[in-house]
Amino acid sequence: MTLKNGFEKRRERLYDWMAQEGIGMVMFEDAEGRRDPAVRWLSGQPMDGLLFLSVDRRSLLIPWDINLAKQQARVDAVIPYGEFERRPGTALRGAAEKMKIPPGSKIEIPSVTPYPAFLRYVGNMTDFDIICRDGGAAAAVEKQRALKDAEELVIFRKAAGITNGLIDLLEKNVRSGKIKTETDAALLIEAEARRRGCEGTGFETLAAGPDRSFGIHAFPAYTGAAFGGPGLSILDFGLKYQGYATDVTLTFVREPCAAQEKMLALTERAYDLALSLAKPGALARNIAAAVDALFARAKKIMPHGLGHGIGLEAHEAPVLRNREDNDWVLAPGMVFTLEPGLYDPVYGGCRLENDILLTEEGAEVLTGGRIIRL
Amino acid sequence: MTLKNGFEKRRERLYDWMAQEGIGMVMFEDAEGRRDPAVRWLSGQPMDGLLFLSVDRRSLLIPWDINLAKQQARVDAVIPYGEFERRPGTALRGAAEKMKIPPGSKIEIPSVTPYPAFLRYVGNMTDFDIICRDGGAAAAVEKQRALKDAEELVIFRKAAGITNGLIDLLEKNVRSGKIKTETDAALLIEAEARRRGCEGTGFETLAAGPDRSFGIHAFPAYTGAAFGGPGLSILDFGLKYQGYATDVTLTFVREPCAAQEKMLALTERAYDLALSLAKPGALARNIAAAVDALFARAKKIMPHGLGHGIGLEAHEAPVLRNREDNDWVLAPGMVFTLEPGLYDPVYGGCRLENDILLTEEGAEVLTGGRIIRL
Repeated sequence: MTLKNGFEKRRERLYDWMAQEGIGMVMFEDAEGRRDPAVRWLSGQPMDGLLFLSVDRRSLLIPWDINLAKQQARVDAVIPYGEFERRPGTALRGAAEKMKIPPGSKIEIPSVTPYPAFLRYVGNMTDFDIICRDGGAAAAVEKQRALKDAEELVIFRKAAGITNGLIDLLEKNVRSGKIKTETDAALLIEAEARRRGCEGTGFETLAAGPDRSFGIHAFPAYTGAAFGGPGLSILDFGLKYQGYATDVTLTFVREPCAAQEKMLALTERAYDLALSLAKPGALARNIAAAVDALFARAKKIMPHGLGHGIGLEAHEAPVLRNREDNDWVLAPGMVFTLEPGLYDPVYGGCRLENDILLTEEGAEVLTGGRIIRL
Repeated sequence: MTLKNGFEKRRERLYDWMAQEGIGMVMFEDAEGRRDPAVRWLSGQPMDGLLFLSVDRRSLLIPWDINLAKQQARVDAVIPYGEFERRPGTALRGAAEKMKIPPGSKIEIPSVTPYPAFLRYVGNMTDFDIICRDGGAAAAVEKQRALKDAEELVIFRKAAGITNGLIDLLEKNVRSGKIKTETDAALLIEAEARRRGCEGTGFETLAAGPDRSFGIHAFPAYTGAAFGGPGLSILDFGLKYQGYATDVTLTFVREPCAAQEKMLALTERAYDLALSLAKPGALARNIAAAVDALFARAKKIMPHGLGHGIGLEAHEAPVLRNREDNDWVLAPGMVFTLEPGLYDPVYGGCRLENDILLTEEGAEVLTGGRIIRL
């Protein structure tokens, strides 16, 4: 399957948006310290480059690695970044010239542009109207990316299938004692991810045995410590397949005490509640609020959000968090995690996380993350 | 060895700088999408949090994970991020209140703050003078971090020693045929890093066999493809030890053709030239320019910079790049890479990279990265 037409189709929607907004040119930047998968999503270039779209419906990629661009990018034109001294400001001016953007046009730069850099762009481009805002092009792309298209769902189903095969293998190997340490678990995932055709893992695997599972995100991510012994062990991992990340968490349980049993039962109840509420039209923050309320009744606090969208990023829109300013409404085509968890400095932590595809019919659980009793 | 006093010593220098600059409070933010190891460097908190320093010499950490902070942070006060709804704007106001910063004071926020976020901070804090600039607190920390202190050099020497042991093992296992694929090489590094006491790798290992070594940074980072066969194979990796990253590149060579021999010879000559020029007082861009000129005389172009500082980040100051605006002058205490390389879509790529500690006497090569002929 090629995404060649897919990229152009995605750009088409953005060109329409630009025309509506009266924007002459939009710039996307994927760079160290300011990653933006919009470049990959719109052009096929997996990383490191500037992408420019003009309102007259042309695309220009200025990649850091020209060889990679020749192999991967599907755009109208490519110019090596070296021709602009690898400076975004120089490239922006060059792109406006190459694309013949009329002086006075609105040019939108990334919303994450630091304030001092914004001042420099404006100073260097006084003949244009430089726009940097929330709710602009980046938000338009974020909204589009939150609704996965048919090509993306094919990839996700494949990614979920590989993830599920690996979950079964992990359970088997923890049960058999083949996995004894956090490192055993994490490296099995690294190896199997590649063997099964993935680009790699979606993020650094978090493997925390009973002594370290109290941390929401274990630090370091994994060590030589024992995994799967008495108490609660957490394994949070994802695979990256054709750019798309899955994200699941398994909790392994051995000889739990009453306090740990209570944490596990609450977490499972919270997960079931969240799943039952995940329907098209639901306000994401209401689902998160219902879970927080369930925990509160048991005098527990979940110290993180309920879930998040996944896609080319391990964390993307929509966000499922109990906060007033969270306006995300669930819609068919969204793929997101549900991941309630509880953490205790003495008893350790547990989390149950799966990837959900929302359809017209409701929530489809793509992955087989689970609490595994040893 | 504890860095407890080390963190306070580092903050002391920054308090002095704040007094000179007339800044009442400085904020550092380490968050997804905007990583800043200054938080770890100044507080011991490895990741995810806001750090505030006041000119009357107090430190306040607002961490995402309070359990981790209790274990790792060495600061005067800690308040969970949850008390501020995990919003940086709310936390900034709360910190100014808790630290009793007088209204009208200058408060410096991170220089990478996006322009729209900057506007919000200013709007929410009209009773203070919010400053966001290049050349401010972040630059002061960057300069301090570029000159490693005694504690950091102890860590670096240990990290380099572990890296060198691993280089020898990698050479042995490629020669013996135990490493046959890119994944074999990368996973050996992952496993050995942990076994030898590291937090992990410094960045995702780049392992590229002869068919993929043409890319500056192979994509995907490693695959099941053959490694070490006829032609040029590149292995670029680093280890993270107590937070500090090494960074080396090995090129494995088998049955090279004349064009490949020429690339290798040029790369080695460029490396020797760079090493001979790396002296206290040298302008970094002049060294990079000399290497670029050497390649140019052979009608070759190196498509990336000559090197970069290493420390809590795999890429930090100083930068060794041939660009007018690069003003870095090499000084004793700096630790940086030298990594000339050449890449060809047909013949593949080669790179030679080592970590250099600059002392009063000159360049000390800490690591044993090399071109390995099979």
